[in-house]
Amino acid sequence: MQKKWVYLFHEGDRSLLDLLGGKGSGIAEMTRSGVPVPPGFTITTEACLAYYESGKQFPEGMWEQTLQALHAVETQTGKVFGDPHNPLIVSVRSGSKFSMPGMMDTVLNLGLNEATLAGLATLTDNPRFANDAYRRFIQLFGRIVLGVDDHLFSSVIERYTQHGKRSDTDLSTEELRAISDEFKQIVLTATGAPFPDDPHTQLQKAIGAVFSSWFSRRATDYRRLNHISDSLGTAVNVQMMVFGNMGDDCATGVAFTRNPNTGELGIFGEYLINAQGEDVVAGIRTPQPISRLHQDMPDLYDQFKAFTAQLELHYRDMQDIEFTIERGKLYLLQTRSGKRTGPAAVRIAVDLVNEGVIDKATAVRRVDPDLLNQFLFPIVAPDAAEANPPIAKGLAASPGAVSGAIVFDPDEAVQRASQGEQVVLVRVETAPEDFHGMVAALAILTARGGRTSHAAVVARGMGKCCVCGCEDLAINYADESVHAGNITLRKGDMITVDGHNGIVYAGVIPTNDPEVVRVVRGEMAAEDSILYGYFTTFLGWADEFRTINIRANADTPTDAEIARRFGAEGIGLCRTEHMFFEGDRIDEMRHMILADTESERRAALKHIEPLQQSDFEGIFRVMNGFPVTIRTLDPPLHEFLPHTDSEIDELADKLHLTSEHVHQRVDDMQEKNPMLGFRGTRLGVSYPEITETQARALFRAIDVAQREGITVLPEVMIPLVDFPTELKLQADIIRRVAAEVEAETGTSFEYLIGTMIELPRAALIADEIAESADFFSFGTNDLTQTTLGISRDDANFLGTYVDRAIIEDDPFKTIDRKGVGQLLKTGIKLGRGVRPDLKIGVCGEHGGDPQSILFFYDAGVNYVSCSPYRVPIARLAAAQAALRASA
Amino acid sequence: MQKKWVYLFHEGDRSLLDLLGGKGSGIAEMTRSGVPVPPGFTITTEACLAYYESGKQFPEGMWEQTLQALHAVETQTGKVFGDPHNPLIVSVRSGSKFSMPGMMDTVLNLGLNEATLAGLATLTDNPRFANDAYRRFIQLFGRIVLGVDDHLFSSVIERYTQHGKRSDTDLSTEELRAISDEFKQIVLTATGAPFPDDPHTQLQKAIGAVFSSWFSRRATDYRRLNHISDSLGTAVNVQMMVFGNMGDDCATGVAFTRNPNTGELGIFGEYLINAQGEDVVAGIRTPQPISRLHQDMPDLYDQFKAFTAQLELHYRDMQDIEFTIERGKLYLLQTRSGKRTGPAAVRIAVDLVNEGVIDKATAVRRVDPDLLNQFLFPIVAPDAAEANPPIAKGLAASPGAVSGAIVFDPDEAVQRASQGEQVVLVRVETAPEDFHGMVAALAILTARGGRTSHAAVVARGMGKCCVCGCEDLAINYADESVHAGNITLRKGDMITVDGHNGIVYAGVIPTNDPEVVRVVRGEMAAEDSILYGYFTTFLGWADEFRTINIRANADTPTDAEIARRFGAEGIGLCRTEHMFFEGDRIDEMRHMILADTESERRAALKHIEPLQQSDFEGIFRVMNGFPVTIRTLDPPLHEFLPHTDSEIDELADKLHLTSEHVHQRVDDMQEKNPMLGFRGTRLGVSYPEITETQARALFRAIDVAQREGITVLPEVMIPLVDFPTELKLQADIIRRVAAEVEAETGTSFEYLIGTMIELPRAALIADEIAESADFFSFGTNDLTQTTLGISRDDANFLGTYVDRAIIEDDPFKTIDRKGVGQLLKTGIKLGRGVRPDLKIGVCGEHGGDPQSILFFYDAGVNYVSCSPYRVPIARLAAAQAALRASA
Repeated sequence: MQKKWVYLFHEGDRSLLDLLGGKGSGIAEMTRSGVPVPPGFTITTEACLAYYESGKQFPEGMWEQTLQALHAVETQTGKVFGDPHNPLIVSVRSGSKFSMPGMMDTVLNLGLNEATLAGLATLTDNPRFANDAYRRFIQLFGRIVLGVDDHLFSSVIERYTQHGKRSDTDLSTEELRAISDEFKQIVLTATGAPFPDDPHTQLQKAIGAVFSSWFSRRATDYRRLNHISDSLGTAVNVQMMVFGNMGDDCATGVAFTRNPNTGELGIFGEYLINAQGEDVVAGIRTPQPISRLHQDMPDLYDQFKAFTAQLELHYRDMQDIEFTIERGKLYLLQTRSGKRTGPAAVRIAVDLVNEGVIDKATAVRRVDPDLLNQFLFPIVAPDAAEANPPIAKGLAASPGAVSGAIVFDPDEAVQRASQGEQVVLVRVETAPEDFHGMVAALAILTARGGRTSHAAVVARGMGKCCVCGCEDLAINYADESVHAGNITLRKGDMITVDGHNGIVYAGVIPTNDPEVVRVVRGEMAAEDSILYGYFTTFLGWADEFRTINIRANADTPTDAEIARRFGAEGIGLCRTEHMFFEGDRIDEMRHMILADTESERRAALKHIEPLQQSDFEGIFRVMNGFPVTIRTLDPPLHEFLPHTDSEIDELADKLHLTSEHVHQRVDDMQEKNPMLGFRGTRLGVSYPEITETQARALFRAIDVAQREGITVLPEVMIPLVDFPTELKLQADIIRRVAAEVEAETGTSFEYLIGTMIELPRAALIADEIAESADFFSFGTNDLTQTTLGISRDDANFLGTYVDRAIIEDDPFKTIDRKGVGQLLKTGIKLGRGVRPDLKIGVCGEHGGDPQSILFFYDAGVNYVSCSPYRVPIARLAAAQAALRASA
Repeated sequence: MQKKWVYLFHEGDRSLLDLLGGKGSGIAEMTRSGVPVPPGFTITTEACLAYYESGKQFPEGMWEQTLQALHAVETQTGKVFGDPHNPLIVSVRSGSKFSMPGMMDTVLNLGLNEATLAGLATLTDNPRFANDAYRRFIQLFGRIVLGVDDHLFSSVIERYTQHGKRSDTDLSTEELRAISDEFKQIVLTATGAPFPDDPHTQLQKAIGAVFSSWFSRRATDYRRLNHISDSLGTAVNVQMMVFGNMGDDCATGVAFTRNPNTGELGIFGEYLINAQGEDVVAGIRTPQPISRLHQDMPDLYDQFKAFTAQLELHYRDMQDIEFTIERGKLYLLQTRSGKRTGPAAVRIAVDLVNEGVIDKATAVRRVDPDLLNQFLFPIVAPDAAEANPPIAKGLAASPGAVSGAIVFDPDEAVQRASQGEQVVLVRVETAPEDFHGMVAALAILTARGGRTSHAAVVARGMGKCCVCGCEDLAINYADESVHAGNITLRKGDMITVDGHNGIVYAGVIPTNDPEVVRVVRGEMAAEDSILYGYFTTFLGWADEFRTINIRANADTPTDAEIARRFGAEGIGLCRTEHMFFEGDRIDEMRHMILADTESERRAALKHIEPLQQSDFEGIFRVMNGFPVTIRTLDPPLHEFLPHTDSEIDELADKLHLTSEHVHQRVDDMQEKNPMLGFRGTRLGVSYPEITETQARALFRAIDVAQREGITVLPEVMIPLVDFPTELKLQADIIRRVAAEVEAETGTSFEYLIGTMIELPRAALIADEIAESADFFSFGTNDLTQTTLGISRDDANFLGTYVDRAIIEDDPFKTIDRKGVGQLLKTGIKLGRGVRPDLKIGVCGEHGGDPQSILFFYDAGVNYVSCSPYRVPIARLAAAQAALRASA
């Protein structure tokens, strides 16, 4: 039996992907689902390979099979290829197994010649359209099939349009006719032969040209770059063209099977009577909402509705469908999964499960975790975004969309906010002493710093909108103004900050409200919010598949409470230093830091201890029954000190010290590279009394909480360890203090002591470190900074690197697998080699990044910890990781 | 046959180390060499182990063999154990295989009792001495053998000395006598038995006590800590005590076989007639030079001379010998290799080879490479060091000893130096813009910064004395003073800086001159310097064994010239940016940096290019035939910019820019962590025109040099690479420019392109990087900073870490093998996996550190590169590494 080289669309299905290519098997599948697709056929990839093997000859029987298939299409459609009265016009498209966008060739309107052109003009009652189709066909065919330099064609168009003074659409029927004639003359001159009029010759040549395009230079390069094999070959799809512009019994449109903004069931889309597909998009005529089709063409509307339902069921997902009605007959041209907002994605997934269309695992797999942000943070209303040009772009550091009055000074932010004003804090960059201002502001905008700069990290931690590294802004503190291009804004002027997209607008731009957050904050009842219902149902399903824990980075009872409501199963990072930036506490801290002797330091620490203790108590109450990881003091001490002369003088006054003395101490403590300086465990090793105080506050808090019936699961974490002895010395202090408090209170404590692995050395000698650690928590922020030698505060050049494809992702957003990831894996392997039950977590920013979570899951972590507002995203990403692994 | 438990000294030798212990086999070896050693015997470690096995019983026959040996000693000496007229007095000492200083017990003066005490008093004609010996014996024996609390004895002494108002030496014979009696009473009360008078009982008990001390708590702990096995046991050495204070026919002294300061042949030492060993050291009487013994006791002097020569020959090294003459008979008590200065070490090694005593390999192995520093840098004259208390201590950053006038301002340093004044630049810390001042100063002293701070690195590069991180100093620029404790020095006051030891003295302290450096600098003829002769002979021998190359880090023709004269075989690191700090060049650089557009930048670079080219030409001329590694621009650009307001204004003036503009740009370019900022290849990737300019200057310089007949072996090095594409992009530029200059000049260039491996990520993906690299050079400074997360400028806490044994060595001085070393090995393995012939070098500070060189050798590097003044040290260390590997 002769080999089957050609498949009619209804003969194939998606299992024949290799043979029919992506496009061919897709149309076959659609045809198979019973919806009306313009008929056609696919010539197989095997035919393409055979074509090359035989020195660019069609394999035996292929052309005969093609003609048979063409005849079958003629029979189906009642049109005839080359018939002047009712011509069959086709498209010829390549289609390989993998999509190679723009790399391969397509010929439209094939089958046109002088005779069929006249027929098309009559049928459409639109000679201009027919002539435009014809000149386009000659140009495409001339360039792609006959190899004529496209410049020759385009220079003719340029002449007619007077070099851009007129548009293509201004060309008259007569001009288009004349252009076609000139095009034909060009072909004759360039190829030495007249443009082929015979549709069968056209088809034969076009098929050969598509086959040949498989080995074109750019297709070959593309495959090389994307690791696609040359030996796949391409299929050729020949399909009847349909026209929605043949009269008032014609139409064209696009529709979604559900609302892509809300996810509500019901067709959502628009159409135009007697129009081409591009007219719907081009906006020259205003399309009608799809519901109007019910009035215009009630039968076709019912058909369409039924078919779309069928397609959704077939593909088990909301579909985005292109359709054309040609002379009263409905054709569905293309269907694909429709793009949707986060809330819509969740609602559709949940509804489809409830409708019995998909199972929960599929639902969980299908939603991009980052889309959940749209439940949590306000977004700029889509139409408003289109209508208002941005004044500056920066890094999308923390999601949200907020309008407020510009304030430059943190104190003023507090003062204005206390009077009920909504303010946006605008700074060159932020420092810990700006914390109160950041709390007061609704959004933070900085001109400098990366996605993990102080502003970004703190903002994300608070779930507050932030755009940072916005270099378009020139901020002048002196006259309290900010310039962006030729726009100048002053203190009090309103701006809108879009933290989802890193965009800044002048004035107030409408935003949509995040119901889920209002429920979580207790401002709205859960039962009043449909969105919240979908959100929790969906995440509940995700949790059914999830196998690793999600914790939150939280430093206060308030943050901890929010984290719990978002489903956090513990605190993975409680930064004890953050407790000391609030209110007057920083003064005590400064007193301690400026102490000259151990006994002075101890005296100041005495004041700090009860404050820290009561903070711990609050957190333990919220986290009853869940583990809480307490990190000992980490930042360089100078971060707590004031910087300006007047602040320093004020501090000297408060502490009854001379201004010179305080100035000198502040100067002495400055560091060249604070990130690599006197911080982390280095502080606790040099000043054991700090660790001692923190440990005492901790264990006394545990005692108080336990007496209240709270279950406390404390995990004490030592930061920035390089050498095993550092950890051992700190662990000794903590155990000693625990024993002292046990003796003092008569209680007994269960606790873990572990360390952060955030320096390359620690990962490389993790076996030695594991000897004194109950757990590891990978601090991937600092590990990224040190492994790559890139300060996150000075990493503006990374933008260029991503743009120029030197790196794939910002390594501070998505973990650098080859470098940082390799160290993480090494650390886990060495650590578990010594302690098979070693608990492993991640508490860097990457703990909330879906791509990174996939990696951490594969690496074998027990939990990831992220900011409270990213907990839902992490829950979903972790569920997806587990599902992928079990697939 | 009964087991041999006891060896007379002449029966053993050093091969019996396991059996006789370190001390026993040492004395045996000395006895065997024929010199007169006080006779005695050793009870074996086997006896000790048998003692424990049998429940603390002497093994069978041991005591009998001990008595026989004792008798043999009596026969040898003519003295009899317990004989009141001519008593044999012995010491009983432990001695295990490995030295355990202070851990084990010793009993002196054993054999004394009322009767022998009287005999000793008569023999020495010194009843006070005899009584003192006796009371010491009772106390030692009481504590060590009988286990009496030493506090009981010392409280008696305290009473007699009126709690420290009198010294031991003030006690009269009668008092000593009374003390002995009280001691005996204490023993009786504490043990219930009288103090044993019988010398044999004393000996038996003492031997048992030494055996028992093997398992004392502190000895066991010490072994645990030092990984010494418990199963070794200890030997017991019983040796006749000799007394140099029995009359004028007695003496005691110490002597070296060669001069330990210069290495010159000839006995060098001192002695005292009728004295005890401690009198020589104590300084109560002034000892005589050893040459005087020739007059005092000519026969004994000749004997001594012959014996010392014999010992030196026996041990094949210069010896430090203790001797005692007892009643006209010479005894050598101890011999060991003598400590010596660097020049002495080299001279002795060379002389011993020439005398045929040792071979060259032994000579090369024997000299500590760091001692070579004493050839290269002035040292504080030893007697002057003793006489002058330091005013401050810091880090020994760069060797040398220099006196000069204090100057705080770099400009003033230049101005004073130009008038012939010798100045020491004193700064809180230094920055690149202080460079001219550092060049002008003879020494640099800073209050802040580690051994690899800017001051230290630059000073070492210039071979200039430097003490840094001298936190005892409070520097006040405003009134130009510096406080150290209660001493205040002002501008112009003289200080002396000792960079070998990190010490600062007030005033001018005499120093010794480095002849070798004067020869290398051409200030003295080589043939006039004996030191230089020894130095070059010795290093020539080292080179015969060395298998890896030594290159220098040099940025100027002058440095390159010095490096060559010290034996550098190429330049491993030429920092192109250092060329731009000199003179007016920095202005061009600043112009380039402040340019707003590429074309402005290119215009400024045009001015820089010829300057850079002529620098390269000069270096190539010096390095004719040797490889030169050129590193493209590395430091953050803001390092080139001025910092103070007036400097910024001045610059704005020069460049015809507004002061505000320059201020703003300088501000904008500041970085939080410059070490991890916009520098290295990140500059060249973002501003390709910089790399282009440097490449053009380089290849044009090569062309010029080649036309002069110079052989140029250029190796272009790209710094701070994280991602393979960074290197590829830079390499593309360099190859393109090379081709352009080839076309322009008609020459052709041979060159290598490689990269620094100085970030953990680069080491971890070295296989990918090796695809575009002809060589790797490990930048171990930055690799240490990033792997450990420690900024070398902010690393003062490392001092505490070393002191508290958290780390063994400063990781910026000696490579951190476990962390940084592991990455280096990984990098080499991955790189050579892809390119087996990959050339590997090291160009960090560690390239000049002997310990690190041993590691690099084992890791398989092809060369190390260090500052010119460390080249000799590196040559020697590399030779020792090769010798160790081949042993």
